Amino acid sequence: MSGPTFPQVEFDDARGLLRSSYEDMQAVLRVPWVMFAARSLAVFGGFVPAAWQAARTSFATRYVERAADELRTMAILPGDDPPDPRPRLSRLGFGEADLAQVRAALRALNYGNVKYLLLITAWCEGIQGRACGGAGALVWSEAAPPSGPPDGMAALHLVDPGDTTPQVRELLTRASDMHLHHGPSSDFRVLANWPVFLQVALDDVLGPVVRSAPYEATALGLLGRAREHVRGLPAAAGLHPDAALAVCSEADVAAITGLLFLFQRFILDVTIDMVRCAQALDGREEAVASPFPVP
Amino acid sequence: MSGPTFPQVEFDDARGLLRSSYEDMQAVLRVPWVMFAARSLAVFGGFVPAAWQAARTSFATRYVERAADELRTMAILPGDDPPDPRPRLSRLGFGEADLAQVRAALRALNYGNVKYLLLITAWCEGIQGRACGGAGALVWSEAAPPSGPPDGMAALHLVDPGDTTPQVRELLTRASDMHLHHGPSSDFRVLANWPVFLQVALDDVLGPVVRSAPYEATALGLLGRAREHVRGLPAAAGLHPDAALAVCSEADVAAITGLLFLFQRFILDVTIDMVRCAQALDGREEAVASPFPVP
Repeated sequence: MSGPTFPQVEFDDARGLLRSSYEDMQAVLRVPWVMFAARSLAVFGGFVPAAWQAARTSFATRYVERAADELRTMAILPGDDPPDPRPRLSRLGFGEADLAQVRAALRALNYGNVKYLLLITAWCEGIQGRACGGAGALVWSEAAPPSGPPDGMAALHLVDPGDTTPQVRELLTRASDMHLHHGPSSDFRVLANWPVFLQVALDDVLGPVVRSAPYEATALGLLGRAREHVRGLPAAAGLHPDAALAVCSEADVAAITGLLFLFQRFILDVTIDMVRCAQALDGREEAVASPFPVP
Repeated sequence: MSGPTFPQVEFDDARGLLRSSYEDMQAVLRVPWVMFAARSLAVFGGFVPAAWQAARTSFATRYVERAADELRTMAILPGDDPPDPRPRLSRLGFGEADLAQVRAALRALNYGNVKYLLLITAWCEGIQGRACGGAGALVWSEAAPPSGPPDGMAALHLVDPGDTTPQVRELLTRASDMHLHHGPSSDFRVLANWPVFLQVALDDVLGPVVRSAPYEATALGLLGRAREHVRGLPAAAGLHPDAALAVCSEADVAAITGLLFLFQRFILDVTIDMVRCAQALDGREEAVASPFPVP
């Protein structure tokens, strides 16, 4: 964290077609943030707007809502529930009002992570030359889900690792290093708004399980199912290399291939992590239920 | 495989500092090929020569020979031996002389994969800002291992996927897709010299286990141990982002970060695969023994 920042185009800095793609991505996916992966990929040619354009029709469907809901149920680790963090949080002066804020953030993250897992899987399969949609017999006549953030979804603030306290920076570095990530995910940057919660989550909820064999097996299962859902999308939702070459250089395509692979694993990890945080606070059923079910 | 080729600088096309880095890498590591990862990273600024320069002293040691030998023993999957492929190979007319060539190639690959796993882990940890050497109490007075290829090591020919038969191309695509790789590894390009063997290996030896839970657990164990060995190298063997920025742009560093992550997983996979192929032919002990032990 002390070194240079990982190149990305943050939401507030995005302009033109990239900005409208970010806004449309949030509206269609009904989430309050743009994934780190997209912000990083935005550095490379015109990939993000073109890839989002390929994805948007398929992602504005109830099929994706249902696929995301199913993936969330697979993100629970086998074995016992994590220890209840509330007694320790309470001793640290972290009260119910604070917890309510954390819960609201977790609901937004748990709603969105599985959608971004589907999106990055489509992009990852596409850039590796594999099928990324078009195999499904989708009922196109089914009404599209509403666009824009669900009622009651919290806005999310991502803490800037370069503009926070050394203690928070250290927690973010710890979160990255325990996962072998190259930097803090959006999810951990959100949790960094509540450093006491983040510390307890890392110590007691995530530390004991991250990158354990059951964690790897859960990630593998999620990945396999996400790929199946992606193949069933109504249309190809990613770009094959030749399509990417229309908007990027060859070297860009190589960079994008690497970053998509890295961020796919990244999103698998944070999907499992945030579900586990919700499970620790409110139990398994609450953790896997859709926080914002589409009627 | 039908689309554009993944950008890379092949050995024969490398010039100047990159060519001498490739040659030195092969000589110091004592292997007959330059890893796909390095050939791909060569597209991005001056990373490969600088990162190899950082690594070379640490890698010209018996410490690395021993670490590599230990990692190879961890690359065996739990459970039963794979089925013996020789009866089917024999029925397909693949005789002892062919098998001798495959065995010689596997010995070279199994000698080198674990060394490249250490190298890419050092580079990956470094670019992610973590320790990549310097913690070890190395006996520098210990004689360096010899430089250059061990006596009797086979030269390797990598089949060009763009210049082979459709059948071989299909086998290479199948090898990539079953691993979720973006293209064929050097190892599979080598095995593609013997399509009958490659097909039987994919059908019977690798297909049933690749990306299974025990496979993921084995990859996880290898990765953890490789990271420990890397921290114990006598000196930092990778480049932190600020060091990389001296020879690359910011976007290059992002690309390199993604590609190192992708290729680390790639090398973990082929390390396990090639050991399993050797195990299928000659049993567990032969598969994990150093093919070219340093006296």
